[in-house]
Amino acid sequence: MAQQLNSFLEIDPQSDFTIHNLPYGIFSETAQGDKRVGVAIGNWVLDLAALEAHGVLHSNVPNCFNQTTLNKFIETGKQNWQAVRKTLQSLLSAENPALRDNADLRQKALLKQDAVTLHLPVHVPGYTDFYSSKEHATNVGTMFRDPKNALLPNWSELPVGYNGRASSVIVSGKDIVRPSGQIKLPNEERPVFSATRKLDFELETAFIVGKATELGEPIAIENAWDHIFGMVLLNDWSARDIQQWEYVPLGPFNAKTFASAISPWIVTMEALEPFKLKGPEQQPQPLGYLQENVANSYDIHLSVEVQTPQAQQAEVICQTNFKYMYWSMAQQLTHHTIAGCNVQVGDLMGSGTISGPTENSYGSLLELTWNTTKPLHLSNGETRGFLEDGDRVVMKGYCEKDGIRVGFGEVANTILPARHFSFNEQKDERYETV
Amino acid sequence: MAQQLNSFLEIDPQSDFTIHNLPYGIFSETAQGDKRVGVAIGNWVLDLAALEAHGVLHSNVPNCFNQTTLNKFIETGKQNWQAVRKTLQSLLSAENPALRDNADLRQKALLKQDAVTLHLPVHVPGYTDFYSSKEHATNVGTMFRDPKNALLPNWSELPVGYNGRASSVIVSGKDIVRPSGQIKLPNEERPVFSATRKLDFELETAFIVGKATELGEPIAIENAWDHIFGMVLLNDWSARDIQQWEYVPLGPFNAKTFASAISPWIVTMEALEPFKLKGPEQQPQPLGYLQENVANSYDIHLSVEVQTPQAQQAEVICQTNFKYMYWSMAQQLTHHTIAGCNVQVGDLMGSGTISGPTENSYGSLLELTWNTTKPLHLSNGETRGFLEDGDRVVMKGYCEKDGIRVGFGEVANTILPARHFSFNEQKDERYETV
Repeated sequence: MAQQLNSFLEIDPQSDFTIHNLPYGIFSETAQGDKRVGVAIGNWVLDLAALEAHGVLHSNVPNCFNQTTLNKFIETGKQNWQAVRKTLQSLLSAENPALRDNADLRQKALLKQDAVTLHLPVHVPGYTDFYSSKEHATNVGTMFRDPKNALLPNWSELPVGYNGRASSVIVSGKDIVRPSGQIKLPNEERPVFSATRKLDFELETAFIVGKATELGEPIAIENAWDHIFGMVLLNDWSARDIQQWEYVPLGPFNAKTFASAISPWIVTMEALEPFKLKGPEQQPQPLGYLQENVANSYDIHLSVEVQTPQAQQAEVICQTNFKYMYWSMAQQLTHHTIAGCNVQVGDLMGSGTISGPTENSYGSLLELTWNTTKPLHLSNGETRGFLEDGDRVVMKGYCEKDGIRVGFGEVANTILPARHFSFNEQKDERYETV
Repeated sequence: MAQQLNSFLEIDPQSDFTIHNLPYGIFSETAQGDKRVGVAIGNWVLDLAALEAHGVLHSNVPNCFNQTTLNKFIETGKQNWQAVRKTLQSLLSAENPALRDNADLRQKALLKQDAVTLHLPVHVPGYTDFYSSKEHATNVGTMFRDPKNALLPNWSELPVGYNGRASSVIVSGKDIVRPSGQIKLPNEERPVFSATRKLDFELETAFIVGKATELGEPIAIENAWDHIFGMVLLNDWSARDIQQWEYVPLGPFNAKTFASAISPWIVTMEALEPFKLKGPEQQPQPLGYLQENVANSYDIHLSVEVQTPQAQQAEVICQTNFKYMYWSMAQQLTHHTIAGCNVQVGDLMGSGTISGPTENSYGSLLELTWNTTKPLHLSNGETRGFLEDGDRVVMKGYCEKDGIRVGFGEVANTILPARHFSFNEQKDERYETV
């Protein structure tokens, strides 16, 4: 059982950002202001650049925190992550007077979260998305292929994954313009150009690579955890109609490259340590390079809320848990490198949509509404097949055990109407106005 | 007809690097030495950092050439690319004494190509690979799906593409370690872990994005060419057996992420201008956003040579041409951004394997040997289904018209034996030693 720590700051016990958490992010005091590294604590952001400037926080590399991304700090390595976390926990503890009794430093280094702007926490050199929830893969396979053979033969042998688009990884808060593209309607011979009618979220988590490798250097499964810095929530925005038409044979492309949104605070693997558990039994036993015999999953409660423009408040439409994931993050990372692919600090590796075993634990509208055949009934009387303009999607996640809470905050975005395309009106009679 | 220019340097008329070409690269005088921007001319590299330091070359942004990648120069924009090219053509011309008669500057700025090390010319933030050769897609569809419906319905409506892995983009010359991974043998119930038995090349070209866009800002087809800086040769290394097992339903991953090799010199679109032609007729006519009515292809002769360890010299096994490509680079780029995906300077966009209509014009061993059913007979009596350790693959490309030659140089790599994996011997009896 992890030891309870107390901070000199007044922190709501239900806060995601207790002294046990201390997730890292990038903030600025105004939207265009100087970016630097901060840590979330209660309702505050602790400014690590200010602590470093005041000489109360040291990293093994100078000037790690007056930075626009976390990459430099992450590159300093696991030992340094641990040392910095220890210092921060001490500085924030009820017992240590260094920050507690220094009004000037508190004034400079503690900012109200609602008064700052949060930015993408890392530069993401590469984004990979896996497909590691058995329930999700089964649901999708049942709907689009064959209910009797919903899982393809490779699914239970390896963590299926694909390369995502790193340039369109965005941080929570940025609006999502409804994407347009080619859609094949059931009774038409040819596709039309249209705004997507099937805009969907995907509830995922993602890990951030903390240690790079060279090309041709696979990561052995027993070392894989050392390459992981922390985790975020990920909404892998998807346009299902664009996806269905474009994805054969080379995988999803425009259906997903328009936006992948992450939560602004990176929760470290150290903070998640108390919530470790063993993932589902793997049958068949994986090939040797994927075998691990340790607690390799985490008890992370996850939820999705939707708020429509007409609704007074957001409404929970999905509750699930990371622990349902079939393939572990170590297995994903090891598989990613087994043929020789190198990874880089800041690489984002998505879990794939996280669905649980029950109908209210599915991590996408595609599954929750069974591709619109079972529309979602909201408490204000509205229904949803897929998302409509103005809808706001909020994903949350937290761990709780023995009175200790470590949360992820949220990733939230609002849908804006599709862009208007004038070229089609002149050139293409098949263009459809939406 | 383009005007013939003459240089004061003695340049073989068959050189790829005439005064009409002037491709950009990154070089250093020793393998670990300082990198900077150079231009290939005949057998020399012209050191642009030296020219800049001597005040005979100006960019619209200072210090563009004493750089480890071309990104900063490319970001200066199309007008500046044109101005710099004009200055370089003038400095190298027979008429201009500025460099011709300055022995000291010539000594400093002209280095022999065979005495320098060439590096990856750009930092590649994103790598996308298309699938735009009709002949290639038809061949693959015939072999692996259905000869009667070899092309999937979406193929003729949009330039099918997928996200590649940018971290493993390498420059010509780097050796390729034969990748290992999961392979499903025909008569086995489960996959084995093995080195690939089907290591293949893919003859491609790629373009380099020269102008970035913001998220949500599609590039109209009439503007797409302004976003393209230049082209390189690309060998998109592939492990066909790993690919066949892993690629459903989300596309190729480990089968390709172990290495994608490019030629070191970026040939600019300006240099390629005299070799423009109209691509194949597109039937059906594409949707409006993909319609262009200009010369949108290039007459680029492409070849693949293989040299086995036993062979005295390399042997041409494929001759094809870029002009066979069905979808143009402008169509690829426009389609890539139509749903809102942003692009970045340095993004690499591969054509997909370029196959022509005849059996000797197929751009992969998969097609040339029809998946080993028609082994390749080399002139020294050896045969090949796929590549063997020690084989060296060389791809070349050039344009020639009215006595003007503009070439790409080459992308060449040699296959090294697979890495030894000890973990499997202990843990997994299904492991196969290769």
